[in-house]
Amino acid sequence: MAFRGGIDLGGTKIDAIVVDDAHQVLGTVRRATPTEGGPPDVVRELAAALQEAAAAAGVETSALAGVGVGAPGKVDREQGTLSTAANLPNWSAPYPLAAELGGKLGTRIELGNDVRVAVEAERVLGAGRSHPSFLGVWWGTGVGGAVVLDGKLWLGRGSAGELGHVVVRIDGARCQCGRRGCLEAYAGRGAMERRARKAELDGEKTKLFEIMRKHGRTRLTSGVWATALVRGDKLAQKLIDGAVEALGAAIGSVVNMLDVEAVIIGGGLGTRFGQPYVERIAAAAAPHLFVADRPPAFLAAELGDLGGALGAALLVDDRG
Amino acid sequence: MAFRGGIDLGGTKIDAIVVDDAHQVLGTVRRATPTEGGPPDVVRELAAALQEAAAAAGVETSALAGVGVGAPGKVDREQGTLSTAANLPNWSAPYPLAAELGGKLGTRIELGNDVRVAVEAERVLGAGRSHPSFLGVWWGTGVGGAVVLDGKLWLGRGSAGELGHVVVRIDGARCQCGRRGCLEAYAGRGAMERRARKAELDGEKTKLFEIMRKHGRTRLTSGVWATALVRGDKLAQKLIDGAVEALGAAIGSVVNMLDVEAVIIGGGLGTRFGQPYVERIAAAAAPHLFVADRPPAFLAAELGDLGGALGAALLVDDRG
Repeated sequence: MAFRGGIDLGGTKIDAIVVDDAHQVLGTVRRATPTEGGPPDVVRELAAALQEAAAAAGVETSALAGVGVGAPGKVDREQGTLSTAANLPNWSAPYPLAAELGGKLGTRIELGNDVRVAVEAERVLGAGRSHPSFLGVWWGTGVGGAVVLDGKLWLGRGSAGELGHVVVRIDGARCQCGRRGCLEAYAGRGAMERRARKAELDGEKTKLFEIMRKHGRTRLTSGVWATALVRGDKLAQKLIDGAVEALGAAIGSVVNMLDVEAVIIGGGLGTRFGQPYVERIAAAAAPHLFVADRPPAFLAAELGDLGGALGAALLVDDRG
Repeated sequence: MAFRGGIDLGGTKIDAIVVDDAHQVLGTVRRATPTEGGPPDVVRELAAALQEAAAAAGVETSALAGVGVGAPGKVDREQGTLSTAANLPNWSAPYPLAAELGGKLGTRIELGNDVRVAVEAERVLGAGRSHPSFLGVWWGTGVGGAVVLDGKLWLGRGSAGELGHVVVRIDGARCQCGRRGCLEAYAGRGAMERRARKAELDGEKTKLFEIMRKHGRTRLTSGVWATALVRGDKLAQKLIDGAVEALGAAIGSVVNMLDVEAVIIGGGLGTRFGQPYVERIAAAAAPHLFVADRPPAFLAAELGDLGGALGAALLVDDRG
């Protein structure tokens, strides 16, 4: 039986797992992503996390068929490099992540884009199993996307799926990417945090930052937003309402163009908010659907927090 | 040698052609689309136009391998019916267009959606020949679209390609479809005419309607808009500028999602305005492109006014 490793490398946390042939998780470890230093420090944490997960599974890392890594940034799979990972410390130039991590673990490393591997996991193992075509919406710090058409991820010339930069309002809000009116400028957790900080400075009342501090955080995590909503925080509700409206418009646009069978909502916020928000997003998309009487199925991602790591482990299968 | 017929059935005109195996046009006829009566009156004109085109080609219609019809509305190809054709007189319920026209012409009729057959013609015979993936933008009374992926028209569940109903501004202008903020509400010739009429009522100066009357028209045709632009009409320029901006945003959104190799601009306005406006639309899309340094090729549809009829004739090949 061949075991495989999978690592979901996020801006705040690293999830490492070891799975068997049947995708059963035999060991799982979570560590914080280094916020200082550089690529070698991140690689050290990745290696340590995967070693722990392998130990929990009772296997040496060198005995694994390989380890897949889903990473936030620009992945060159052939070269085994990751570049322009804005949420990782000092990681802009291409860094030989596969070679460095492979050296430490004694096994083959396969790199993939974080959103794509998570969507691929849903296609193979999750909510996408029964839908040959779907749009994956990964709602977190940014808004990632991926389209599966006829059972295959559509990559275009390599950069397809930038749902976060679908325009929802001409001349609209400034996005971190420098453009205007992108979905992400309204719905990304990063953009919402910037709006919340500005609103508080402008004198709006909000419990968001008090909750953040109580949670021992320095950023408005998905958990902070969820708590603020439960506590009826008006600013949090207003910003989340705006995010849902923007998600509905962008999803409506994509469905009108591609007429996919399903929309699968995942990502940090998507997973945290779950089914009630899947339904709210479906309701926000409905007024924009050209074929109004036959909407796609709106589904929550099924694999939860480990979806990214499970999808990363699938990268090994591709060439195994 | 098998000859085929092709008919482009538009809201204002009917183009009928007869082509040979090599897609060479042997006969071509243009007639006005009836604006009164109902489906039988339209069918009579279609039959007469195709008979004339066949006579010009020196062939009996009953000797054709078949006749394809590109029609504006909802086509059920299997049933051979057309319904909800808003720009044709009293044509809402499904009408057996294939059977009725086939009876008059003595040959097999294949129906297709007008935008799709025109885009298919560009794929096979025109600007799409060297691009396995592209977005077709059909800019006319409405804004039609179609995506070709891996050399095939992507249909989704049957209704893909509704570019005109991609949202460019949340809570934006009311579209004829009843929704808000659709591209077509800014860029469709129909929407622009409604805006122009309202602006004139509100006292804005414009030569648009004077030009329309001089052209012997009752609508602001593509030719009327083109003349008004040449004559420096400020209202016409303002409305066209808004249309170009909206086209740029919607095209940018689709390119960000699908990363296609090319964008092909056709339709009544697209064909009339040609290369200078293809370049203006490319410039309007540029600020929205996430991969800014590698834009798709922006191309004018190559087949011009006969593209729709050529594409319709291709429908016969499919099953021939």
